[in-house]
Amino acid sequence: MSTYADVAVGDVDEFGRYEVTKGEILSFAERYDPQPFHVDEEAAAESMYGGLIASGWHTCAMTMRLLVENSLDEEGSLGSPGVDEIRFRRPVRPGDVLSVRTEVTDKRPLESDPRRGLVKSHVETSNQDDEIVLSMETAMFVRRGE
Amino acid sequence: MSTYADVAVGDVDEFGRYEVTKGEILSFAERYDPQPFHVDEEAAAESMYGGLIASGWHTCAMTMRLLVENSLDEEGSLGSPGVDEIRFRRPVRPGDVLSVRTEVTDKRPLESDPRRGLVKSHVETSNQDDEIVLSMETAMFVRRGE
Repeated sequence: MSTYADVAVGDVDEFGRYEVTKGEILSFAERYDPQPFHVDEEAAAESMYGGLIASGWHTCAMTMRLLVENSLDEEGSLGSPGVDEIRFRRPVRPGDVLSVRTEVTDKRPLESDPRRGLVKSHVETSNQDDEIVLSMETAMFVRRGE
Repeated sequence: MSTYADVAVGDVDEFGRYEVTKGEILSFAERYDPQPFHVDEEAAAESMYGGLIASGWHTCAMTMRLLVENSLDEEGSLGSPGVDEIRFRRPVRPGDVLSVRTEVTDKRPLESDPRRGLVKSHVETSNQDDEIVLSMETAMFVRRGE
């Protein structure tokens, strides 16, 4: 994605490679989501998840890193009003390798600010077995014109 | 929130105190959301935000920390299928102090697993001026019975 004019509804992009380590799962969760199945290997092994899994917020954050590195334009991207329909579809575990697929679902000028448009996308994050682990509907403010 | 039986639709809870530092805004964003208005003070000052702001995902993560510390029951909480209608309603800046309000909006047994129920809540995160910075609709799996 670059500036607003370059984006078309239906555009599909696939990118990224994020190696999920046990250390990063633990350090994110110890800070932000210290539930047993995110921070305690023994408790996680006995939980319904059968082992340590990443916080869903961590999976969102790793997905954002791939979006910023591969999809967002540093000049064109102007933040976000929100995110809809986040679904944690499968656990993310140590050793998983994540990649992202985006599809533009809507674009429109902002009535309140002619310098910006709103671009909506369906975003899916998959693991190394092509299983979708996360899906969400994102909305981004994108710079219009020059 | 404790186990499923203890939760009632309409329950309201308010809690938490999370001091947002510049250092933490930078370190989160450098790792997960390295856009200029999150990681570069000079660029942020010249942006539409007029200064450094926290990544929206960081605000979600800080909110989760307050939920885990104050609201979720360690034994009763069994993860989440997803999150709806995240809205980044105001920027979060260095020095802000965040707190959380939750209101239970729905509860129902899981047909697929009698040991679990689903509890939905409207969650709002506010700053020290009682301005809402984030709102979202959460869903949590909660243990049922003994």
